Amino acid sequence: MTGYVRTLATGARAAAAKIAALDSAQRAALLMSMADAVAAGSGAILSANAADMARAHESGTTGAMLDRLRLDQGRVEAIVAAIREIATLPDPVGQVTRSEVHANGMTVEKVRIPLGLIAMIYEARPNVTADAAALCLRAGNAVLLRGGSEARDSNIAIAGCLHSALREHGLPAEAVALVEDTAREHVLELLQLTELVDLAIPRGGERLIRFVAENARVPVIKHYKGVCHLYVDRAADPALALQLAIDGKLSRPGVCNALETMLVHAEIAESWLPEALTRLQERGAEIRGCERTRALFSAAQQATEEDYAAEFLSPILAVRVVDSIDEAIAHIRRHGSDHTEVIASADQAAAERFVRAIRSSAVMVNASSRFNDGGSLGLGAEIGISTTRLHAYGPMGLESLTIERYVVRGDGQVRHPESAATG
Amino acid sequence: MTGYVRTLATGARAAAAKIAALDSAQRAALLMSMADAVAAGSGAILSANAADMARAHESGTTGAMLDRLRLDQGRVEAIVAAIREIATLPDPVGQVTRSEVHANGMTVEKVRIPLGLIAMIYEARPNVTADAAALCLRAGNAVLLRGGSEARDSNIAIAGCLHSALREHGLPAEAVALVEDTAREHVLELLQLTELVDLAIPRGGERLIRFVAENARVPVIKHYKGVCHLYVDRAADPALALQLAIDGKLSRPGVCNALETMLVHAEIAESWLPEALTRLQERGAEIRGCERTRALFSAAQQATEEDYAAEFLSPILAVRVVDSIDEAIAHIRRHGSDHTEVIASADQAAAERFVRAIRSSAVMVNASSRFNDGGSLGLGAEIGISTTRLHAYGPMGLESLTIERYVVRGDGQVRHPESAATG
Repeated sequence: MTGYVRTLATGARAAAAKIAALDSAQRAALLMSMADAVAAGSGAILSANAADMARAHESGTTGAMLDRLRLDQGRVEAIVAAIREIATLPDPVGQVTRSEVHANGMTVEKVRIPLGLIAMIYEARPNVTADAAALCLRAGNAVLLRGGSEARDSNIAIAGCLHSALREHGLPAEAVALVEDTAREHVLELLQLTELVDLAIPRGGERLIRFVAENARVPVIKHYKGVCHLYVDRAADPALALQLAIDGKLSRPGVCNALETMLVHAEIAESWLPEALTRLQERGAEIRGCERTRALFSAAQQATEEDYAAEFLSPILAVRVVDSIDEAIAHIRRHGSDHTEVIASADQAAAERFVRAIRSSAVMVNASSRFNDGGSLGLGAEIGISTTRLHAYGPMGLESLTIERYVVRGDGQVRHPESAATG
Repeated sequence: MTGYVRTLATGARAAAAKIAALDSAQRAALLMSMADAVAAGSGAILSANAADMARAHESGTTGAMLDRLRLDQGRVEAIVAAIREIATLPDPVGQVTRSEVHANGMTVEKVRIPLGLIAMIYEARPNVTADAAALCLRAGNAVLLRGGSEARDSNIAIAGCLHSALREHGLPAEAVALVEDTAREHVLELLQLTELVDLAIPRGGERLIRFVAENARVPVIKHYKGVCHLYVDRAADPALALQLAIDGKLSRPGVCNALETMLVHAEIAESWLPEALTRLQERGAEIRGCERTRALFSAAQQATEEDYAAEFLSPILAVRVVDSIDEAIAHIRRHGSDHTEVIASADQAAAERFVRAIRSSAVMVNASSRFNDGGSLGLGAEIGISTTRLHAYGPMGLESLTIERYVVRGDGQVRHPESAATG
């Protein structure tokens, strides 16, 4: 422990009080300046990103990782637009979520306040630097950012723009604290700062999430893998079920709300499965099925137990024929990741039974798994999709970056009037 | 790691699904049977408690600890009454907290579901065994209970009654799992069970809370000490301020929402403080003050820095004269424990400034700190008062033992209709 991150976090913690003291219009104006500063700094950001990209090329990085790291003019403009959109979202701070007048005349309210200091631990995407800062500040928090080493130069350039906007508003640049030295020991130090960090949010691959979860003493909300299921009930509309399968598996296979496994009721399997799997395969899906699936669709490979627990992040679909809705529910309980599950069924009783038995962050009845994100569910923007069943579950928007507390207003009410009598 | 607690938790986890599947009336009926079983078993419970008390006497336990451990007929009746009251509280499970119809025709709801398996780690009070079980089951959860070794026999007797009620309803006794072997290694094991335990709630002294916080990999909501402040503003009504001081400090000094420190604006100190401290001292308070306090009230002892951070749990009151509301706020930020702070002031602008600047779980304007508990704030019953600024902050009632998740109902909506077209 070098104290390097403790120093950053102490500064950010002090700055959090200044951000919390701003009113909603001031925080919105700050975000607009942040957007302007990123737009004005796009040249410097793109140069820094070019340096990151060159280093990544040299070290042999390829494919999806390289694409996540890459910025261009369009992507910088998207960052700017995202900050502006967050500036216009409804402000959760100060919201009164409950209000009662008690018999003794006291008013009891629950009111949202900022969490305080939020630490974001992520990987190669430089846009997260701006997104997370904008969301945290909009909800009255300070933020401690630790991005991946690959994106170091890009993150420094983006944070520099955000700092200039903070200073322009007479606010401490420390409110957006960037851990520039990406040595892993500093992440370990960050995760021990229970007196300073109110919440750590890891976003990235399974290894990062596990590292954070295993080493954190600060509270953590995980954004873990999505092993999402589509259960095709015996009462499913065949065309509707196929639509959900195609959209869920193929519209964007690399994201966490994409489908990984399809469970098909035995009574519909014979009539539906061969045609459906043919269509999926035509569109690029690779099918891995159980014995009963393969009997109906010989092009399927044999699925293993590992396939049923996998987040493929590719067009692979695991398929299993089940004898009942209960067998489907048991399969999901065993292999699922609490992310998103879908039922296709025209039988309302079956659908409601599925909804009650499934405890994932989102359950969809006759709608695509791909709708489980902040934008689609009406939150406007999200800092991630929580698979931790505490505080926030599913997409985390601005509200999730606040906490409700009590405000009581009275005119001298006491608990034991007799003992407090002043006579 | 012996696997002893893992086995208990695995059974409780499986039982949680059965509890979650009950409807509200069934869970209420289960609680009524639990209350009846405790009433019917009071003889056995009191015998077991006598054995615990004898052991405690032998090992030299005295005072408050012994009082917390002791049961008598009246206290067993209070346990029974508490379970019955919890049975009648509004059920949070299934509550729809948000509902929207989207432009594409989907209905998006946020619905409360049980957390799952909650572990309660506590000390000598045997009533917590029944209270925590009743609250967790009412909200559709299973519970893993680890009470103090002093109360071992009492806890086994109470859990036995709860188990008979579960069996009577055809439910697994494992839904209320008691860690009978109180060796500390088993607590350590419990705190590592991230796949089984959704939330751990420690309730007790500072040492217990620290042990749990430092060793937990499961999510923890702390119920930590209350270093509660009363700030007497220059615009305070003198009689009202004195009432709040007497009630806050003296109505029950041993509880977490009792006052520990009083901060007094310099402009009111000379006229108010000597009289107020005289009254407090007459009623049994021991005053420890700063230099300026002692100049106005010579009977005060000198307060140390430690006094300003202390939860005295006794009639000691630390007092400090401050030159401004900002100095009071800075003192609270430095020494407070995020529990409860009070302002006495007739100046509404000052009061609102205090409310905005203070981020404790409850802030009281002209009302006693003693109102920060679940009963007084309208929750009906509480499992504790959270000082963790995540998920629940302040008194934790039934709602805090649930989580909101998304339920989407559609008729075939997909994210990318063009790619999902089945033609």
